[in-house]
Amino acid sequence: MKLKEINHPIIDLYESLGKNFDSIIGTDVATDLFFEVYKETSGFLSKTSNVKVRSLIPEKRYISFTLDGRIISRPINEEIFKSDLKIINKTFKYIKENKIQELDSSFITQSIYSITMSFCVSIDLIKKNDQKTPGTYFERLVGHLFSVFLGIKPIKEIEVLSLDSKMKLPTDFIFDLGKNKPKLHVPVKTSTRERVIQVWAHQRILDGVFGVGTFLGFLNCIGETKLDHSKREVIEICLPDQWNIYQRFIARLSKVYYLDLPRRYKELEFVKPFGDFFHENTELFI
Amino acid sequence: MKLKEINHPIIDLYESLGKNFDSIIGTDVATDLFFEVYKETSGFLSKTSNVKVRSLIPEKRYISFTLDGRIISRPINEEIFKSDLKIINKTFKYIKENKIQELDSSFITQSIYSITMSFCVSIDLIKKNDQKTPGTYFERLVGHLFSVFLGIKPIKEIEVLSLDSKMKLPTDFIFDLGKNKPKLHVPVKTSTRERVIQVWAHQRILDGVFGVGTFLGFLNCIGETKLDHSKREVIEICLPDQWNIYQRFIARLSKVYYLDLPRRYKELEFVKPFGDFFHENTELFI
Repeated sequence: MKLKEINHPIIDLYESLGKNFDSIIGTDVATDLFFEVYKETSGFLSKTSNVKVRSLIPEKRYISFTLDGRIISRPINEEIFKSDLKIINKTFKYIKENKIQELDSSFITQSIYSITMSFCVSIDLIKKNDQKTPGTYFERLVGHLFSVFLGIKPIKEIEVLSLDSKMKLPTDFIFDLGKNKPKLHVPVKTSTRERVIQVWAHQRILDGVFGVGTFLGFLNCIGETKLDHSKREVIEICLPDQWNIYQRFIARLSKVYYLDLPRRYKELEFVKPFGDFFHENTELFI
Repeated sequence: MKLKEINHPIIDLYESLGKNFDSIIGTDVATDLFFEVYKETSGFLSKTSNVKVRSLIPEKRYISFTLDGRIISRPINEEIFKSDLKIINKTFKYIKENKIQELDSSFITQSIYSITMSFCVSIDLIKKNDQKTPGTYFERLVGHLFSVFLGIKPIKEIEVLSLDSKMKLPTDFIFDLGKNKPKLHVPVKTSTRERVIQVWAHQRILDGVFGVGTFLGFLNCIGETKLDHSKREVIEICLPDQWNIYQRFIARLSKVYYLDLPRRYKELEFVKPFGDFFHENTELFI
């Protein structure tokens, strides 16, 4: 069943957000729509039940949601997920007043995790096996937050010049802060799995074409959990040794941000909680 | 339905090949099994009917196969695909006598295309939407041919050393020809689509860790056709400009070989028909 064949207010709101997203990104129109989506998904989740899932990750507890007991959602980190509307209200208020950086890093991380997962979990229950819709939603949300914070709209392709040709290379979000300021390369992935090497490869191209240091790479992810649906066990899949090799031999990303920071990536100095972005090196950007 | 739940002689032979493949690769046991698979798929295809598909690629004609008129296979290039058992017999004979390089490049390309596609098309009709089995089969076939030709078995991970740690990096096939000889980095993909940047990124790591020129990269693909099942139209998806950027700014692959060379990749000097591998620079390897 295709997305547009499903009648559900969450899907309708998601579609509204997608219409002209390139022109509303970074504006109050988009902020209001994200808030509407949140309220709709939060209302939807209040009608679901919790399902116990067994976390095999030390010091982390997860729950899933279900409507009928059969289809269960992706797991949610209980410690980070907050369904308190006051927190979400405050977050959207601060986004609209363009002062998100006045919120604590952990407050931002919790709040954006809750907004994101509320949508992802709802889609898990409305439309089985749809990975694309949650991914697109998270990408738009991160793009919007960066756009509000930096005060500019992103582009999604850049011109690559060489001696005898010029062409456009499709990219993830690029935020160009102007002359003598860094440009930000902002890929967004729900989780990284085996395909993340692409992000380092794109950074390498940007470094090669424009010179190392011209583009700062900030990869954003939700988490690395994997739910075994039959056993109802949650694990995290992390490859810190490989990431170290990518950092040394392909290109150097400035930071990788996570909403639900995987335990084994805490040892990597370039991996941080999502909220940290709004507090680090801000003098570089603004 | 899982593969092992399907009872079919083609699947049984495929499973036999997979059992201990690492130890039989490059040996007559594997050559014989590939021949058995071919004969079984060829017999199977003789019971199917052709379906006309419209090629939108200039100078290329394609057909598909069907059992029931509803499920149709991936498209086959009519000019390259040969179902003449004499050709295939000769090819397997030359493989066993380790003199594949005595066959013309175009003979090798046609024959290996026919062996590969005979399997892929059979799987399309036996098991809908299975991309993995044809991909694994093609990877094993290419690995086997390289192994016979080079006279060594490949490895699939290499040790990466740095000042304070050592680790194994999983890779595609690596053929190590010994001291003062190049090492071959041999990725195999049915088609490349958007994920191929990984291949250049892996080459970059090998160049970075071991020095440029230590590993020669030879990417092997079937083709880049895409069938629109409702319109029954065949197109080719190629991104030559992006490949040029990858070659210049990520790493340099020695060659990309195709069984069904895409029209728009003919302009790239590093893209060649598959059979060329067995005729180019052989003094380097043996």
